[in-house]
Amino acid sequence: MADANRQVTRQPRGDATRQSILEAAEKVFADLGYAAARLEDVAQVVGIRRPSIVYYFPGKQQLYDQVDADIFASMHEFVLKRVEGVDDPMARLLALLDAWLDFLVGRPTAARIIQRLIADPAPRGDNPVRFSESALHDIEAVIAMGVSAGTFRPVSAMHILNGVAAGALFYVCNAGQLGDARAYDPANPAELERFRALVHKLAEAAVIS
Amino acid sequence: MADANRQVTRQPRGDATRQSILEAAEKVFADLGYAAARLEDVAQVVGIRRPSIVYYFPGKQQLYDQVDADIFASMHEFVLKRVEGVDDPMARLLALLDAWLDFLVGRPTAARIIQRLIADPAPRGDNPVRFSESALHDIEAVIAMGVSAGTFRPVSAMHILNGVAAGALFYVCNAGQLGDARAYDPANPAELERFRALVHKLAEAAVIS
Repeated sequence: MADANRQVTRQPRGDATRQSILEAAEKVFADLGYAAARLEDVAQVVGIRRPSIVYYFPGKQQLYDQVDADIFASMHEFVLKRVEGVDDPMARLLALLDAWLDFLVGRPTAARIIQRLIADPAPRGDNPVRFSESALHDIEAVIAMGVSAGTFRPVSAMHILNGVAAGALFYVCNAGQLGDARAYDPANPAELERFRALVHKLAEAAVIS
Repeated sequence: MADANRQVTRQPRGDATRQSILEAAEKVFADLGYAAARLEDVAQVVGIRRPSIVYYFPGKQQLYDQVDADIFASMHEFVLKRVEGVDDPMARLLALLDAWLDFLVGRPTAARIIQRLIADPAPRGDNPVRFSESALHDIEAVIAMGVSAGTFRPVSAMHILNGVAAGALFYVCNAGQLGDARAYDPANPAELERFRALVHKLAEAAVIS
């Protein structure tokens, strides 16, 4: 009975620690980048010692992989909820872009990690889309839907990704990078709605003949 | 005479070495990021030893500063040539966006360093716009011109930067990051002209009432 109790209490405690490690790691990788981040930095944020991390994640690469996997899985899930049942291609494209914008505004550490991934081939050198494939597929699917319905011009989904969708990453990451006089809060509702209105305008211009 | 000759031959040789170090450093910083890059990596690319770099640049931060300064100064100069005498605000905005796109396509190492700067507050923590100010001012000036002429809606120059101009960075940096099936050559003339046409369409949609 004592053993059973210990089992029950240890399991959730273990999961909570694992979750704390992942959250701390996301912040450390966002702030420092993969190369400069150390497991010690993550341990310090969590308030545990390095060996406790290694108990859950054998090394930095595995921890980073798990952070990346979680970011893209969470983003994809967030998108699915927003686009579910939205059948009109334009409405679905806007719902996808809105979902990405809202997800990244709500989780700026994810935005900065994705921003780094795009500059940095190293940690994903073998397969750069190992985790991001779901996001790329999400935008390809809606563009293909609109093109085949004749609603969209025959545009490249990757051009729409680079030219339109990428703006959400910059909007979040640049908030403090443009100097004091131009600093803004990306989560400020008025600021966010102005940027969203621009993104909608751009998306329509990009795909409508 | 021998001394004078040595002076003459040493000076250009010195400048050529300095230039080689800067070019190598730009590549190393683009590939690895500031944190992971080492002066030894730069020395290896140039084919000299570390102390020869320290003769020109006392440390990594100074070398990185010089690379950044050169990127933004070169980009600004490139822009000035393109926008000179272009007085119509829309034409001037498109000339600016074209200049940035062409500059970054021609110098992808610069694109990746700027991409990293946006994610990474650390190396410019004290003043993130120390070198990028000229670029920010370039877009602010043309937006202000168009708004005051009544040609443009009253838009935020920073929203145009994040929503429209940033696409050029993604177009260049993402070329090899989207998986083998989606890889493209950003310098391929047909690919580049398709992306440029999209950027023009987005710019018009963004600023015209």
